[in-house]
Amino acid sequence: MPTPTSTSPTAAPSAPLPAFAATAAKLRDTVLASSQAFDIVRSLSDEAGHRLAGSPGNRAAVAWALRMLPQYGLQNVRAEKAMAPHWERGPASAAITAPHPHSLAVLALGGSVATPKGGIEAEVIEAASVEAIGKLDKAAVKGKIVYVSTVTERAKDGSGYGKAAGARVQSASAAAKLGAVAVVIRSIGTDNNRLPHTGGMRYEDGVPKIPAAALSIPDAELLGRLLRTGKPVRLRLELAAKTHGEVEAPNVVGEVVGRSAPDEVILLGAHIDSWDVGTGAIDDGAGCATIIEAARQILKLPERPRRTVRIVLFNNEENGLGGARAYAKTHENELGKHIVALESDFGAGRVWSARYLGAPASRKLFLSITELLGPLGVEVPEIDARGGADLIPLRPAGVPIVDLLPDGTTYFDYHHTDNDTLDKINKDELDQAAAAFATFAYAAAEMAGDFGRVPDDKRAFR
Amino acid sequence: MPTPTSTSPTAAPSAPLPAFAATAAKLRDTVLASSQAFDIVRSLSDEAGHRLAGSPGNRAAVAWALRMLPQYGLQNVRAEKAMAPHWERGPASAAITAPHPHSLAVLALGGSVATPKGGIEAEVIEAASVEAIGKLDKAAVKGKIVYVSTVTERAKDGSGYGKAAGARVQSASAAAKLGAVAVVIRSIGTDNNRLPHTGGMRYEDGVPKIPAAALSIPDAELLGRLLRTGKPVRLRLELAAKTHGEVEAPNVVGEVVGRSAPDEVILLGAHIDSWDVGTGAIDDGAGCATIIEAARQILKLPERPRRTVRIVLFNNEENGLGGARAYAKTHENELGKHIVALESDFGAGRVWSARYLGAPASRKLFLSITELLGPLGVEVPEIDARGGADLIPLRPAGVPIVDLLPDGTTYFDYHHTDNDTLDKINKDELDQAAAAFATFAYAAAEMAGDFGRVPDDKRAFR
Repeated sequence: MPTPTSTSPTAAPSAPLPAFAATAAKLRDTVLASSQAFDIVRSLSDEAGHRLAGSPGNRAAVAWALRMLPQYGLQNVRAEKAMAPHWERGPASAAITAPHPHSLAVLALGGSVATPKGGIEAEVIEAASVEAIGKLDKAAVKGKIVYVSTVTERAKDGSGYGKAAGARVQSASAAAKLGAVAVVIRSIGTDNNRLPHTGGMRYEDGVPKIPAAALSIPDAELLGRLLRTGKPVRLRLELAAKTHGEVEAPNVVGEVVGRSAPDEVILLGAHIDSWDVGTGAIDDGAGCATIIEAARQILKLPERPRRTVRIVLFNNEENGLGGARAYAKTHENELGKHIVALESDFGAGRVWSARYLGAPASRKLFLSITELLGPLGVEVPEIDARGGADLIPLRPAGVPIVDLLPDGTTYFDYHHTDNDTLDKINKDELDQAAAAFATFAYAAAEMAGDFGRVPDDKRAFR
Repeated sequence: MPTPTSTSPTAAPSAPLPAFAATAAKLRDTVLASSQAFDIVRSLSDEAGHRLAGSPGNRAAVAWALRMLPQYGLQNVRAEKAMAPHWERGPASAAITAPHPHSLAVLALGGSVATPKGGIEAEVIEAASVEAIGKLDKAAVKGKIVYVSTVTERAKDGSGYGKAAGARVQSASAAAKLGAVAVVIRSIGTDNNRLPHTGGMRYEDGVPKIPAAALSIPDAELLGRLLRTGKPVRLRLELAAKTHGEVEAPNVVGEVVGRSAPDEVILLGAHIDSWDVGTGAIDDGAGCATIIEAARQILKLPERPRRTVRIVLFNNEENGLGGARAYAKTHENELGKHIVALESDFGAGRVWSARYLGAPASRKLFLSITELLGPLGVEVPEIDARGGADLIPLRPAGVPIVDLLPDGTTYFDYHHTDNDTLDKINKDELDQAAAAFATFAYAAAEMAGDFGRVPDDKRAFR
């Protein structure tokens, strides 16, 4: 494996490179030297701001993409219809009222119902996890606010989030079954700022819907300390969230049309929507910029690659996957010719790991291409790719998936918070990611052969 | 100089140690091993929360000190009357309304007037500093909101704050002289969180009072980027601040009464008030805990030191120095017997530098005492001590001042923000500071001789 600091394509390939390797290597180094990815995410996040489906920012972002993608040279730029739920946060407030008054930093979880006007005030009972809620006595929970104190562990691959996010998604219904009047969770995040992390939650059918909110981590720790004094702790919570009907929230698509096999598609995905906090610079402005820049640079090559590289800016990733489902439906008959799909939706860090999910026999081909990423410091472990959430609806069709995984060590410091802003993005790291996506996409669009289909037993998203 | 990791009092003294050195060294090591400083700051910040003069938290903090200092063993615990201005923040909001809408994280500066109800909306003009405001054309400023973009540099000794804070204190009047309708500043801070830094500002007599607020640093940078596009940028600002009359905000005093010279005083100061954000854990709960723990440990020695060690928890440091002025007035006739004053009001970091301001002939005595701090890693540069703000009213009387300066590298990440909470404090660092204060205070209370008086030409606070 070449060292991460080398950028020479001849550094140490351990297998013969395919014929187009020289062009791919030059593309990679050109992107590193001339990437505009940071300007692209700056433009999107400064001009549209945050952009939850149904919001003015979401409409501004779609308009931005329809205006800018042609300027970046993309072909066949169009909006594709998709529907999304329309939820509005409204103001939120929370305070500890006993034993010592403290105002708390709080955000409603996405999809939460409102509290009654004037709020709810009740005694607090703690549970360390969703599972722990289930073990509480119904009598101890009835009429109380359940505080769920699950801790999110920091991890380069984001695995701490996967272990913790259930506390956000499932706590409300778990607590409501025992008669709780609301839930507040310790934010699913790894920082220590007074900025709560929002994110999606779900109500189970047939269970009363109770308000659900996230406290910032320092506030959650304060609440925990007061609970440990043994004195009754009371909390007041007021949420003014509103759930409306469905709303249009289109995907935006653009292409580098293949020169000889235009119906064979290399799909690069990211999502144009964001939560309604911060400016969505990291989640997922950075992903949009990564794939747009990759396409922009491929378009500047002397000739377009053999296959089509299709950019899809999915809408409504955050609270419904309406865009992803619409794409899979609209393009149902083309999915057999989707050679591979990649999504950039894990921040703006350096790509450090490439993972594959396709026909086992084609893994060799994948490995030969990833040789081109060695000079970027990308490892290729024997771990199946998972794809971003927007690729879930493609999985039943067996579309091969490749992950180019960014370093997520700090991702959950900012994820779904007001701190998700441009200043958190390091230009050099984002440029490296754009180089990785450009190189892989070009190679996949040019290579002889394909990755087959994902075996049936690996098509379910886990 | 002994190495910072050594804790042996015999490691490398470069001059003969005074007779009480063995007791002082043992005290230092005992504090390191058994400090309760973290528990003290936890108790204060969790129970009283933030505590600006006039607020319920301020009264709770005074009650906390009157209840807890006797429990920590302190003698002669009492409140001493002091008056303070009473200012209430109320809600604040700000938004960029053109060319692209963005809501902004904003806090009123302390002492600001309110905007009219419904807010002010105006075009924005940028100035890089207070001085740069003065160079703007009156015609260009009239009717506008001035944005002051002064950057605070990170520095271990806090020097970046001193250079930048004028932008917070003076911008409103500088801009009002040219007809501005409001000012917003880039927060005086070194972080990149969406949490603005409040802090005191002053209106000049005879100049119209205009509203003044701080934007979080990411918001300020967004505003700067939009201004650099050349399009007119408009801002809406609404502040509901209220200025009331004066209010009682007493100091709390406690003592280790000297065994043979009780009228000679070693003053350890910190401030019990805080800004009305966060829980004031760092500013200045940590300082209160440092000096309380120092006194608590001195009280546990086999015999009390010769002189009195007096803890003063000053009130109203943040917005008036009413407590400091009251102390100097109340104790006017004793100041000649104040041997030395130290204040802990620069966070919870490790003490790394000891500085002296007293009679030049007594510097030798100071140096012999600071040998005891060598094992804590404390340097003794040839720089005059400045003291905390609460020591300013003692300076005309020539009371010697010693600084035990904590490492302030991260202090201005949290200073005056909602992020000033307990979780930011490292127990080991706070314990080291408590050990340094205990050791120095004990030695100064026991030593033969004194530090004389500060020379006349060094009594002014600069």
